[in-house]
Amino acid sequence: MKKLRHLKPAGEAVFKDSYTTKARELLEAYSPGMQREIAVVGVPLSKASISHSGASFAPTTIREALQSYTTYSGEEGMEIADRIIDFGDIYMNPTDVTQNQERITEGLTDVFATETAGNWMILGGDHSISYSSIKAFAEKKTVGVIQFDAHHDLRNTEDGGPTNGTPFRRLLEDSIIRGENLTQIGIRDFTNSGAYDEYAKEQSVTVYTMADVDRLSLNQILEIEIQRLAKVVDVIYLSVDMDVLDQAFAPGCPAIGPGGMDSKTLLKGILFASHYEKVQAMDIVEIDPTIDFRNMTSRIAAYVMLQFIKGKRMDDGGGTQKGL
Amino acid sequence: MKKLRHLKPAGEAVFKDSYTTKARELLEAYSPGMQREIAVVGVPLSKASISHSGASFAPTTIREALQSYTTYSGEEGMEIADRIIDFGDIYMNPTDVTQNQERITEGLTDVFATETAGNWMILGGDHSISYSSIKAFAEKKTVGVIQFDAHHDLRNTEDGGPTNGTPFRRLLEDSIIRGENLTQIGIRDFTNSGAYDEYAKEQSVTVYTMADVDRLSLNQILEIEIQRLAKVVDVIYLSVDMDVLDQAFAPGCPAIGPGGMDSKTLLKGILFASHYEKVQAMDIVEIDPTIDFRNMTSRIAAYVMLQFIKGKRMDDGGGTQKGL
Amino acid sequence: MKKLRHLKPAGEAVFKDSYTTKARELLEAYSPGMQREIAVVGVPLSKASISHSGASFAPTTIREALQSYTTYSGEEGMEIADRIIDFGDIYMNPTDVTQNQERITEGLTDVFATETAGNWMILGGDHSISYSSIKAFAEKKTVGVIQFDAHHDLRNTEDGGPTNGTPFRRLLEDSIIRGENLTQIGIRDFTNSGAYDEYAKEQSVTVYTMADVDRLSLNQILEIEIQRLAKVVDVIYLSVDMDVLDQAFAPGCPAIGPGGMDSKTLLKGILFASHYEKVQAMDIVEIDPTIDFRNMTSRIAAYVMLQFIKGKRMDDGGGTQKGL
Amino acid sequence: MKKLRHLKPAGEAVFKDSYTTKARELLEAYSPGMQREIAVVGVPLSKASISHSGASFAPTTIREALQSYTTYSGEEGMEIADRIIDFGDIYMNPTDVTQNQERITEGLTDVFATETAGNWMILGGDHSISYSSIKAFAEKKTVGVIQFDAHHDLRNTEDGGPTNGTPFRRLLEDSIIRGENLTQIGIRDFTNSGAYDEYAKEQSVTVYTMADVDRLSLNQILEIEIQRLAKVVDVIYLSVDMDVLDQAFAPGCPAIGPGGMDSKTLLKGILFASHYEKVQAMDIVEIDPTIDFRNMTSRIAAYVMLQFIKGKRMDDGGGTQKGL
Amino acid sequence: MKKLRHLKPAGEAVFKDSYTTKARELLEAYSPGMQREIAVVGVPLSKASISHSGASFAPTTIREALQSYTTYSGEEGMEIADRIIDFGDIYMNPTDVTQNQERITEGLTDVFATETAGNWMILGGDHSISYSSIKAFAEKKTVGVIQFDAHHDLRNTEDGGPTNGTPFRRLLEDSIIRGENLTQIGIRDFTNSGAYDEYAKEQSVTVYTMADVDRLSLNQILEIEIQRLAKVVDVIYLSVDMDVLDQAFAPGCPAIGPGGMDSKTLLKGILFASHYEKVQAMDIVEIDPTIDFRNMTSRIAAYVMLQFIKGKRMDDGGGTQKGL
Amino acid sequence: MKKLRHLKPAGEAVFKDSYTTKARELLEAYSPGMQREIAVVGVPLSKASISHSGASFAPTTIREALQSYTTYSGEEGMEIADRIIDFGDIYMNPTDVTQNQERITEGLTDVFATETAGNWMILGGDHSISYSSIKAFAEKKTVGVIQFDAHHDLRNTEDGGPTNGTPFRRLLEDSIIRGENLTQIGIRDFTNSGAYDEYAKEQSVTVYTMADVDRLSLNQILEIEIQRLAKVVDVIYLSVDMDVLDQAFAPGCPAIGPGGMDSKTLLKGILFASHYEKVQAMDIVEIDPTIDFRNMTSRIAAYVMLQFIKGKRMDDGGGTQKGL
Ligand SMILES: [Ca+2]
Ligand SMILES: [Ca+2]
Ligand SMILES: [Ca+2]
Ligand SMILES: [Ca+2]
Ligand SMILES: [Ca+2]
Ligand SMILES: [Ca+2]
Ligand SMILES: [Ca+2]
Ligand SMILES: [Ca+2]
Ligand SMILES: [Ca+2]
Ligand SMILES: [Ca+2]
Ligand SMILES: [Ca+2]
Ligand SMILES: [Ca+2]
Repeated sequence: MKKLRHLKPAGEAVFKDSYTTKARELLEAYSPGMQREIAVVGVPLSKASISHSGASFAPTTIREALQSYTTYSGEEGMEIADRIIDFGDIYMNPTDVTQNQERITEGLTDVFATETAGNWMILGGDHSISYSSIKAFAEKKTVGVIQFDAHHDLRNTEDGGPTNGTPFRRLLEDSIIRGENLTQIGIRDFTNSGAYDEYAKEQSVTVYTMADVDRLSLNQILEIEIQRLAKVVDVIYLSVDMDVLDQAFAPGCPAIGPGGMDSKTLLKGILFASHYEKVQAMDIVEIDPTIDFRNMTSRIAAYVMLQFIKGKRMDDGGGTQKGL
Repeated sequence: MKKLRHLKPAGEAVFKDSYTTKARELLEAYSPGMQREIAVVGVPLSKASISHSGASFAPTTIREALQSYTTYSGEEGMEIADRIIDFGDIYMNPTDVTQNQERITEGLTDVFATETAGNWMILGGDHSISYSSIKAFAEKKTVGVIQFDAHHDLRNTEDGGPTNGTPFRRLLEDSIIRGENLTQIGIRDFTNSGAYDEYAKEQSVTVYTMADVDRLSLNQILEIEIQRLAKVVDVIYLSVDMDVLDQAFAPGCPAIGPGGMDSKTLLKGILFASHYEKVQAMDIVEIDPTIDFRNMTSRIAAYVMLQFIKGKRMDDGGGTQKGL
Repeated sequence: MKKLRHLKPAGEAVFKDSYTTKARELLEAYSPGMQREIAVVGVPLSKASISHSGASFAPTTIREALQSYTTYSGEEGMEIADRIIDFGDIYMNPTDVTQNQERITEGLTDVFATETAGNWMILGGDHSISYSSIKAFAEKKTVGVIQFDAHHDLRNTEDGGPTNGTPFRRLLEDSIIRGENLTQIGIRDFTNSGAYDEYAKEQSVTVYTMADVDRLSLNQILEIEIQRLAKVVDVIYLSVDMDVLDQAFAPGCPAIGPGGMDSKTLLKGILFASHYEKVQAMDIVEIDPTIDFRNMTSRIAAYVMLQFIKGKRMDDGGGTQKGL
Repeated sequence: MKKLRHLKPAGEAVFKDSYTTKARELLEAYSPGMQREIAVVGVPLSKASISHSGASFAPTTIREALQSYTTYSGEEGMEIADRIIDFGDIYMNPTDVTQNQERITEGLTDVFATETAGNWMILGGDHSISYSSIKAFAEKKTVGVIQFDAHHDLRNTEDGGPTNGTPFRRLLEDSIIRGENLTQIGIRDFTNSGAYDEYAKEQSVTVYTMADVDRLSLNQILEIEIQRLAKVVDVIYLSVDMDVLDQAFAPGCPAIGPGGMDSKTLLKGILFASHYEKVQAMDIVEIDPTIDFRNMTSRIAAYVMLQFIKGKRMDDGGGTQKGL
Repeated sequence: MKKLRHLKPAGEAVFKDSYTTKARELLEAYSPGMQREIAVVGVPLSKASISHSGASFAPTTIREALQSYTTYSGEEGMEIADRIIDFGDIYMNPTDVTQNQERITEGLTDVFATETAGNWMILGGDHSISYSSIKAFAEKKTVGVIQFDAHHDLRNTEDGGPTNGTPFRRLLEDSIIRGENLTQIGIRDFTNSGAYDEYAKEQSVTVYTMADVDRLSLNQILEIEIQRLAKVVDVIYLSVDMDVLDQAFAPGCPAIGPGGMDSKTLLKGILFASHYEKVQAMDIVEIDPTIDFRNMTSRIAAYVMLQFIKGKRMDDGGGTQKGL
Repeated sequence: MKKLRHLKPAGEAVFKDSYTTKARELLEAYSPGMQREIAVVGVPLSKASISHSGASFAPTTIREALQSYTTYSGEEGMEIADRIIDFGDIYMNPTDVTQNQERITEGLTDVFATETAGNWMILGGDHSISYSSIKAFAEKKTVGVIQFDAHHDLRNTEDGGPTNGTPFRRLLEDSIIRGENLTQIGIRDFTNSGAYDEYAKEQSVTVYTMADVDRLSLNQILEIEIQRLAKVVDVIYLSVDMDVLDQAFAPGCPAIGPGGMDSKTLLKGILFASHYEKVQAMDIVEIDPTIDFRNMTSRIAAYVMLQFIKGKRMDDGGGTQKGL
């Protein structure tokens, strides 16, 4: 059969450099029996948000943003050659939010049970998905959580059900994690209520405000906290709410504001944390692509993923890497 | 092996109604030996445009817009059940525009030579692609062309090479089609120069202005012209420059302006023309999704495709269909 | 006490013409014992939508759009002097969609039970709210429904629960209205599935497609249908899905497309229908202000409200009004 | 001296077709002693607007939009060969609105006094400029005015000074024009107050609502009114407030709304009116380019200018032109 | 009387957390006899701007942005419990800019004379309003001014009247403040003219450029200047032109540019300054919400207000607060 | 002849401060015989870009952005009084990209040959233009290049021809510059491939990553590199790809991403480099105004130009300037 000249599949990228691999090409659809260092799952739920949110589109836009990156870290002279297992997205029912949240736990329980990967990246969705995700992750292990967030997310559930303002309250109340094992970093002024600040204290949650981050440096905080947690938990889960960043850097979060972290600090922090073996899962939440500018916030998320992967592939312990 | 609960492939539509088929599902990637009534090919070239144009994105957005339509025509009580062969897109080199134009002719020559379909839909790209497409289409047959356009596209090629302002000039000069076999519909006032109006007359091109369309009705014009052309050509090719539409209806064309056709008239006209057996090809060009509003213009293009398909599937001769 | 010079309440309109009343000033918050010809209620639910929708913002933007209109109809030389009772909005829980739908029925049942108004305008929200609203409206009366829509909204409920694609299916299945008493106007080609077209026929739903509207005229259709329904029902409810309009006129609906009605036709139709005494309720749904252009679609909605009110205040029977 | 290869002046259009003249090239900066059929002046005032308006940018965007048109009318086979005198713009002081309004009258008085042109096109700016412009125009002649507008613009001046809501009130009160010599076309429902409708009647202003336009046709109205006015005034001035158009056609006016005129009707009407010798001036106002979509509304304005020019260059009397 | 189920007032926030107070709830409309620590007044004037500006909308958007903040400072463990008196906005005449400026002085004179608050926040509007505001503030006291600005705002008034480029020139020329008592911080390169730099020197105005800010730190500059001014004036007024910020942080100012301050520095500076008892007034100007991205700049303004309030409520003297 | 009151040329800025000169006024169209310190040329080519790019509009928007700056540096107390020669733009053929690239070399060869200026600023366009520009610049001199870029731009040319990904590869392969004489600053992680990193090493290109910049400071790197290069080359050419900046600062580059330089660092670096006499040329590329926010990126480019000019006009050697 004669080949048709110049034809390519619909939608495929027009340009391909023979010597360059795009990070998106690392994604490989899951099939049973696979064994990789890293896997990814999308959780497109945002109807649980208090405010109008299109965060359900983020699993798609973050994957697309990987197309803007290569697999090569020049800073380390390191090629990310291993494929990443992509389990796809959890199916969401259009009208039943609470059933969706159970469905996430069920789906991720099955995903984690495959044991095909040593490390997991969960792409939200709004922050409510972290409850379901951590619940699945904590079924067989004691979990410590490091939450990057401008907000405590410790709201009561009476006022609106299991929203994106409540995941960590619910995890504590349902004894899925212990307050001592929850660290919140980047909590911002005039962005939380005194009642929940108080609740965090009562529950022995460790809280670093933005002033703390500015004073101590993020990596120093992470070092302290990961070493503390590593002694008492089996695994550490990073929960990255993108609104921990200043609005100038992450314009696509529903709850934007000034006074937050810059993106370079976060990127360096994720790399630093990822070096630790016990850090085995990370979610990225609260990116609403419908209100973003040029998918900037999804681009940061994709970079966060690459830093996490890179950290896992470097031998040293977190203090000697060449840089960002 | 145990099935993972609730997982679906990344990016797949969240909601699926079991009783509804989306028009996009009609598209089926080409493989040799197929035989269908209709085939589609994308031609993502817009670097040949005089003005800055992102029409190269339109093959993708038009296919996506088919996702907004079902396969069912309630007006006719007709289900479009046959699949459409999708040959994908012609590959475009980033820097060599004229080579790309030859590549289109080569690629489409190979596509047409498969004879897998009786009717062809070509998705541009800018209007320059019609030269390459019609050249391929005319290799073995005498072709008549009905061009929907605000512009003659009969510019000289000295001033800028083979741009989107020149396709029909080049087809005439290269004797690929004869002036008598070219009909232009929708030519707008203060949108062309006297020199090219004169050239059209010299070449015996048949021209219907927008005033003609408003006075005579599009379907009456089409009836006259298709019957006239059918006597002297083997096949008729519709070239649909979306800027034949008024800017209020097609906000995503590079050359928008008032005083044009409304979309309903065009949609009815395409259905009418498609009934005729000799009408066997259609291109849709000059949609720039990067400047459109909510892909409105690509949505019209997808509807135009469906009208073309519907016309091919109706038995009667064009005068008795129930409606739009 | 000395008055402070030049101060006005925060947010109040800067300019006030002493001889002009804005339509928004007609709105008067409900208090028990009121008696008016017209009342309005907002239903800000859009989490029941199949696709991402911000229709929950529309009750606010439509009320704001009333600020762009005056209370005076020059066509009729008529001043709308009576106030409109504004019951405010039904409170929506952030995470429980189905409970919200029951809440709408409960809230509207209470509202209708006040009997403070003879005619009701319900501002959605997505189309799922019409189930809840009509259910409340039909508690004590036999209701006929005239639905303006590009879609049947007769989807099965298994695939996604009680979404904005299912309200009329659920009304029929729950025997809240009878198929004979449902008229659908503006149903568009390639926008519904054959299965639901068939279902409509089985249920004796009366369907007018856009081709029917173009051929017969909307007012003629309305005359036939209202007179037919008036014989068999106590009251008639108009359900106005704004996507019955062409995308060029209503750019802010989630499901936009070409081939629809123009806004002037709809506006004239609502006026015509409103003359009939049995037409006592109307909802306006499927406007998503977050994707609209300059609130154009909410502006039409506000005009639709005014036409409904004007119709109620004119003496003649629908055939002799001077015009739009 | 050696010519530098390939250099062209900064900002000049990249592409130039040797056989095409752009309408913008017709503009020729004024110098004393010129004599042409048509002249244009810009009046960039919009701080007199009741609402926030960037109409001061419109003289620039309308001139730029002429670049999208050629000088050739294919409908008439007519080339517009004569140059148009461009007097530039009236200088506006940043903080003194009322002084600006006097300045417009002074500047235009000087412009008209040059008698370099037989016909004048004034580009606003908001509608307040029509007061100043017509005042200058009426200094030596009796003027009849045909106003295309959704609004009467007959507001009292106590409530906000000489705004864009008051020009025709002020012209009547200052006896610059007589009520009998003012015709308003396109007045829309729920867009004016009864008090001003009454005032119009008291002043013997002739008013055609949109319902009148839909019923009688614009050209028929124009024929009646121009013939009536021609008997009693020296010259007729067209004042074209773009918001006479429906929002779907003119998205860039501050006061948009549905229920208005379509652009083709207006374009035909201007051509029709321009045939009459006594029609010697036209202003175009209320286009705010900062809120428009792709300068659509300025594009219509440029076309309106060309229709005005074309009408002046055709010999016949308005009833026999071939078309738009 | 039976309560209607689920109804809430139109437009009220859908979600309310019982344990959280939003900063916007602090605002309490003024009535005579009130006594509070802080009061706010809006001054919606932007027609005095040299360039097109919608800063008149900022009093509304800044108040709305307070809805994005809570009343609780976690950094200090402090709840802002006291209400803020909201005097509303100064009424602006649509056409008389200079009269508006007098009106601001009159209105604020009355407001200040109520002595209901010890500290005042004035929300502009463009920077021209600072002349009127400081004039009212200086009627009975000697005022020192610390101006955050990229520009001197010392233009002559001949070229355009009392614009937003002239407030401090006019204050000096009218002897309302003395040059020695004016400190300008953040003056940017290539953003002012030599003539006005010279004028500042002649008038003994103290100027810190952005290079000074980068070298010395903002808080150090503030400490020096407040202590210096405190010795010679009764009260200090902060005038915060948001364009002192870099365009990356404050995208909604009319005169954006690179090379400015980041928002965190400004926020810390306002807190620092507010500790001083003599700092008793602050205006925030030059935010144009119509060109902003997601109201980012208004969000910073609301945070600036909260920092000002927080500073007033902390006991210590400015050097020991825990941080931003 | 009597002067017409209040008239000004069309399009001229409304406001003019008599004591302020705008930087744009420095531009003076070239005519033979001129002799100035600085000249500028525009190169509006972006069809050579791999991705869709409107960088061809940047020469116009950057010149316009100069209108937002004055000619006065307050940091140095220095007025830029000398005019800048503006050679206009190189003419670009619409369809022949490779011919355009030759045309750029020819045009710039002629421009440089005039020797009217000692220093040159070239405004792109995409980065492909640097090949053509440096080729012309290197005709009679040995050239060292300092490239600010997130990318190596050392791609092979087989995969897409001479795109914006290849200029430095082509310069090396064509022996126009030597690898030792090329310094790349700002190279970002996951943004290049290992193959090209390797190629850079093989060619002895000096590479500073963003981690290097963060660690060493840009000015220190520049000092080392300029002193190194100055010993071996005749002149140094700065090639400024704006995507070296973080996306938060330069939102208008086609290839945006986080992790880059902030704008203040770049501005200071350009000033520093410009002090060196051997630094005699600079291009600014990869700004696409069609996707920018409020022309922020062009505004930075204009400031970069002013820093370059300022550096040339300061006597000292780069270490003692007062600041930015
Ligand atoms: Ca969170
Ligand atoms: Ca958060
Ligand atoms: Ca064409
Ligand atoms: Ca065309
Ligand atoms: Ca519906
Ligand atoms: Ca619908
Ligand atoms: Ca008007
Ligand atoms: Ca008007
Ligand atoms: Ca200022
Ligand atoms: Ca300023
Ligand atoms: Ca580059
Ligand atoms: Ca680059």
